[in-house]
Amino acid sequence: MVSPVIKLNSGYDMPQVGFGLWKVDNAVASDVVYNAIKVGYRLFDGACDYGNEVECGKGVARAIAEGIVKREELFIVSKLWNTFHEGHQVEPIVKKQLADWGLEYFDLYLIHFPVALKYVDPAVRYPPGWHYEGDKVIRSNASIQETWTAFESLVEKKLTKSIGISNFQSQLIYDLLRYAKIPPATLQIEHHPFLVQQELLNLCKAEGITVTAYSSFGPASFLEFDMQHAVKLTPLMEDSTIKSIAAKYNKDPSQVLLRWATQRGLAVIPKTTRVELMTANLKHTEFDLSEEDIAAITAFNRGIRFNQPSNYFPTELLWIFG
Amino acid sequence: MVSPVIKLNSGYDMPQVGFGLWKVDNAVASDVVYNAIKVGYRLFDGACDYGNEVECGKGVARAIAEGIVKREELFIVSKLWNTFHEGHQVEPIVKKQLADWGLEYFDLYLIHFPVALKYVDPAVRYPPGWHYEGDKVIRSNASIQETWTAFESLVEKKLTKSIGISNFQSQLIYDLLRYAKIPPATLQIEHHPFLVQQELLNLCKAEGITVTAYSSFGPASFLEFDMQHAVKLTPLMEDSTIKSIAAKYNKDPSQVLLRWATQRGLAVIPKTTRVELMTANLKHTEFDLSEEDIAAITAFNRGIRFNQPSNYFPTELLWIFG
Repeated sequence: MVSPVIKLNSGYDMPQVGFGLWKVDNAVASDVVYNAIKVGYRLFDGACDYGNEVECGKGVARAIAEGIVKREELFIVSKLWNTFHEGHQVEPIVKKQLADWGLEYFDLYLIHFPVALKYVDPAVRYPPGWHYEGDKVIRSNASIQETWTAFESLVEKKLTKSIGISNFQSQLIYDLLRYAKIPPATLQIEHHPFLVQQELLNLCKAEGITVTAYSSFGPASFLEFDMQHAVKLTPLMEDSTIKSIAAKYNKDPSQVLLRWATQRGLAVIPKTTRVELMTANLKHTEFDLSEEDIAAITAFNRGIRFNQPSNYFPTELLWIFG
Repeated sequence: MVSPVIKLNSGYDMPQVGFGLWKVDNAVASDVVYNAIKVGYRLFDGACDYGNEVECGKGVARAIAEGIVKREELFIVSKLWNTFHEGHQVEPIVKKQLADWGLEYFDLYLIHFPVALKYVDPAVRYPPGWHYEGDKVIRSNASIQETWTAFESLVEKKLTKSIGISNFQSQLIYDLLRYAKIPPATLQIEHHPFLVQQELLNLCKAEGITVTAYSSFGPASFLEFDMQHAVKLTPLMEDSTIKSIAAKYNKDPSQVLLRWATQRGLAVIPKTTRVELMTANLKHTEFDLSEEDIAAITAFNRGIRFNQPSNYFPTELLWIFG
């Protein structure tokens, strides 16, 4: 069982179905990654901020040591945290993250958020998170151009094969494309039936940027943060429209939600710690939704975004997606 | 009758109630501006793209010649069009626009859209508009940083007292603030009860950027473009909630819509060619809405934006606000 691939504008093939490492507990991360590789996953989507890169790397190392997979068959994604946006900070932190994973290169390295925060020494606090002492958020003056220029030199130094962005909106992408010598290969965004973002997808299609969806199951990813607007919504997996479409194809609601995204051309990175669900998620491209069913799911759109800083930090960072 | 003023972060006072020159016909523009000055308007919001700067300048010159107002009592705003974003193109076009107005300086000069298009020689086509031959849109590679750096030198050269931006969203503003030596004094945006944009306003408040609302009456400004979603909505002026609030204060619905914006801290730039409505709009700050009535109007919010390029040009520029 291998995922279909998408050809990136950097020339590399990226699996369309990958495995997301956000909120994978450190205690189980090594086993989860190892099991996911055994099931057939090849893309793993990590980040400094997830705080589990050492453990995830152990799962990769074990699978390679046991001959289940070769490094070059894997597609490892990581992300730059906000506190390392200044040009001279990028290469050292990438090297630390590679060391954590036990890798010599990433396949794809992303700017996690278009938010530059004051440097935190990894020896002092790692991952650094959003806050400083006294719950303050302290900014840095690094522009996106400064960070992107440093990203371009990572490719030159073979520390990553492709570079991309995450949580960027259209105006900032448009500006980035003006000065980029290497255009972003991918944009990773929150994307589910409540947040369809069609115009942003159109921009990316026109510009040759592959889009990866995170939180494909919508509010389900955010219940643990006690977000009121996530709690109040009917879970997509229990929605009667989604359930009846799933029944029609004899698939799970989760497979329908993923297929809706992949038929729209996006890559997906579902997460689960249960091996049988890993397989179901990975195999979800084995059927096709009809155009009518895709449209019915797209019609759920309400422009509801869960993963914005203002949902976690009511005062200081209200405006990232304002 | 003089408008209240807002102190800009540049140190200058800006009238909170001004007069918008978008869609003022060239045939009447001179008289409209002259009459508006007589009624008491001091701020005029123009732009290269409105195509009427010569005529508006004549209205100003007449009022000054007749001793109704002095230049230094006026606050003249203009905007850089998309085709002049490259650094070396900014100063020449500002000088042309000043010559059109018959002025030596602007009080405020804005980047009209965060969209850089290929240069068009003003001798060939002016205003240049969005399209080139064959209905194409041709981009330029000027970044916002390049344009903003040129804007900063306009202040140094005393061609404008303050500089600002228009139609920018939060991520791009945040990036601009990282490299700006002079922060934008104002942000001009579409703002009406159907498009409240609270998080963007919060960002601007936190950063000391004054926000000017355009299209304060909502869909009414866009009916002439045959926009289906403007035509289908109940006009705000005829909405029963707005009308009943207006009746309670013995004011016009238009005055209620403007007061909602100015009590939210925004500047407004309503346009009318009828002198009695000019006066009513200018005088709208003479009463206050209750907090409850402000909240009732804010609750109209549906995130409906009319002035986006994709509403005029369905294919090429879908993504400006995507």
